[in-house]
Amino acid sequence: MAVGEYPFPSMHPVAGVKLTAVCAGIKRQNRRDVVLFELAEGSTVAGVFTKNAFCAAPVTLCKAHLAAAPIRYLVINSGNANACTGEQGLRDAKATCEAIAQQTGVKPEQVLPFSTGVIGEPLPVAKIIAAIPEALANATEQGWTDAGAGIMTTDTRPKGFSQQIEYQGKTITVNGIAKGAGMIKPNMATMLGYIATDAKIAQSLLQQLAREAADKSFNRITIDGDTSTNDSCILIATGQVDLPEVNKPEGELYEKLKDIIFAAYIHLAKSIVSDGEGATKFVTVAVNGGANRDECLDVAYAVAHSPLIKTALFASDPNWGRIVAAIGYAGVPDLDATKVRVHLNDVLIVENGGRATSYTEEQGQAVMKGEDIAIRIDLGRGNVAETVWTTDLSYEYVRINADYRS
Amino acid sequence: MAVGEYPFPSMHPVAGVKLTAVCAGIKRQNRRDVVLFELAEGSTVAGVFTKNAFCAAPVTLCKAHLAAAPIRYLVINSGNANACTGEQGLRDAKATCEAIAQQTGVKPEQVLPFSTGVIGEPLPVAKIIAAIPEALANATEQGWTDAGAGIMTTDTRPKGFSQQIEYQGKTITVNGIAKGAGMIKPNMATMLGYIATDAKIAQSLLQQLAREAADKSFNRITIDGDTSTNDSCILIATGQVDLPEVNKPEGELYEKLKDIIFAAYIHLAKSIVSDGEGATKFVTVAVNGGANRDECLDVAYAVAHSPLIKTALFASDPNWGRIVAAIGYAGVPDLDATKVRVHLNDVLIVENGGRATSYTEEQGQAVMKGEDIAIRIDLGRGNVAETVWTTDLSYEYVRINADYRS
Repeated sequence: MAVGEYPFPSMHPVAGVKLTAVCAGIKRQNRRDVVLFELAEGSTVAGVFTKNAFCAAPVTLCKAHLAAAPIRYLVINSGNANACTGEQGLRDAKATCEAIAQQTGVKPEQVLPFSTGVIGEPLPVAKIIAAIPEALANATEQGWTDAGAGIMTTDTRPKGFSQQIEYQGKTITVNGIAKGAGMIKPNMATMLGYIATDAKIAQSLLQQLAREAADKSFNRITIDGDTSTNDSCILIATGQVDLPEVNKPEGELYEKLKDIIFAAYIHLAKSIVSDGEGATKFVTVAVNGGANRDECLDVAYAVAHSPLIKTALFASDPNWGRIVAAIGYAGVPDLDATKVRVHLNDVLIVENGGRATSYTEEQGQAVMKGEDIAIRIDLGRGNVAETVWTTDLSYEYVRINADYRS
Repeated sequence: MAVGEYPFPSMHPVAGVKLTAVCAGIKRQNRRDVVLFELAEGSTVAGVFTKNAFCAAPVTLCKAHLAAAPIRYLVINSGNANACTGEQGLRDAKATCEAIAQQTGVKPEQVLPFSTGVIGEPLPVAKIIAAIPEALANATEQGWTDAGAGIMTTDTRPKGFSQQIEYQGKTITVNGIAKGAGMIKPNMATMLGYIATDAKIAQSLLQQLAREAADKSFNRITIDGDTSTNDSCILIATGQVDLPEVNKPEGELYEKLKDIIFAAYIHLAKSIVSDGEGATKFVTVAVNGGANRDECLDVAYAVAHSPLIKTALFASDPNWGRIVAAIGYAGVPDLDATKVRVHLNDVLIVENGGRATSYTEEQGQAVMKGEDIAIRIDLGRGNVAETVWTTDLSYEYVRINADYRS
């Protein structure tokens, strides 16, 4: 089940990125479950990772490798998360990097490993290593679509983004693929994202862009409030387009690049929400009028995580009492309930501490019958705004997560 | 659906408490939906209430009345929460108190009003007032069972507690009734509780006991993480037993009373969890080895609120990866994952950052097949412990909350 239209786009090539997906037989035979990226020399790479204290072995290794050497390869397996696997897990992730290093002549630190799938099972590292020669031989600039499918786990559809902009007569491409369906929440979670451009961006600026873009996208989505051990989001700039390096957060080219990179992150994040496990509604929770960012996010997540609100959304029931209850328990200090206003899309439902006098149940139901619903909350105490995206809670969510050992 | 054995007990009378439940026709005809308590002169009464910023009109009034005058009557209606009803809601709650005051000769401030049910609908105050003469005429010391049923909403069974202790040849009784099934979480939520004893306890000490007992019971349970606008828990001491007043937190009688009052609160809180909407498992999340109370509770609630863990519990799936993921994202600063140990009942499942070497899937499944499951987490960094109680997340939970405008 999935909601809304997020078709996988036709992917432009990104000069300096070759990739492919091959079958290693990790969980099933004849499924493309190992994805390889090969990056041109001179590429810059930045990452944002899960804050989970039980972060997986590949996450630990990614952070170390990014700090150690220029990255040339990424290897991603689905079907096994290599998380909570202790010392053996680290050895297995290292062995994967070493296999690629041996066959390509780079250092093991120039390889980033990623895993997604079941937690706590030993990584079938021999199968992954056995698939690497084929992956190295097959990687091409046309591999994006296969790679988008290869990183999926419970996803019902691949998620992709591909757009181009012009600057001084040159074409710059930004591509992205992502996976994730459940266990999504701030600080990411069972979320993998890979965004690449052929522009040239200095390492420190790229890291800043990767952090800011993730904060406005993957860190603003939630399906069940759980954060995984493996979340990783990587931003790559190959520098293959003949334009000057961007190394400061200013100027026309920087602004253009920032806009399109943010658009890629937000599109992929919303694609993940739209494919939320069992989702039948795409829900935007937009809070404004807050005194600060934290209280806006506290309210937004209280609403986005409430199982009572999520089941009402599933039932297309404009149960505004559950919404005000969640706003009320979000912990905003000295919140004046009489100043809070709530809209469903453009319909005012709550003001002056109760139901808006203009509101009719028919208006609310008309909004709730749609697939795309905005809960807009004005706290009436400041000028700060924050938005998060989420889904409803359906029978199907329970079925997927009760049946599937993810 | 409900889990475990929590039969409604045979209720001893409590000298100084008369009560009854009558039919006012609030949501349905021929359902006892208005409960009245009449307290002997000289009774002390203490309360703990929701912290929700959208707290309901009766909650606002209860707090004011408790501060103003000795309480003689409690009136509770089910079927309508009188929450988010603005100024009209306050007028309606006051009108109920005034009606009782007029007919009994007490002041309106000596009446505490309570409401539970749908949010945002005007209170059918005329129906409630019309039922009061019958309630006043019918109140007896034998009314506990009817009252326990009269306060129910989505509850599938009434919740009660009745025990006696002996002290210096005198018998002291402690009774309690409670309601609540969903929307339960720290700071209470759609939870009403009434605990009464015929011992004599000074007002300030009673308030302290009410706060401490709620903190170890109703504030430690969660079903869906939502906190309601109406939660209230009242502790009554009528002083009708011929024993000296207890006015300090020390001495044998104080300790005995504290033990039995805490037992009443904890029993009623666990009864509520066992009747959690759609519950098929009763789950204890016990965290020890914490450096402080907050981090123990952060971990306990991260586990207790995780939809992924709750659906795995519903499926009787010992999915320990989801448990460690939740511990990992609970936000404990500098948590050393390798020191964390997790047991399911007595089975060690996680240590040294991964699956315990002694653990077998069969052991985990044997535990998960039971109805009563303890997830025991040792953080390995201190001596503080905290426990919360919760349920699984089932299809039935979604059905109830998608179908019912609560």
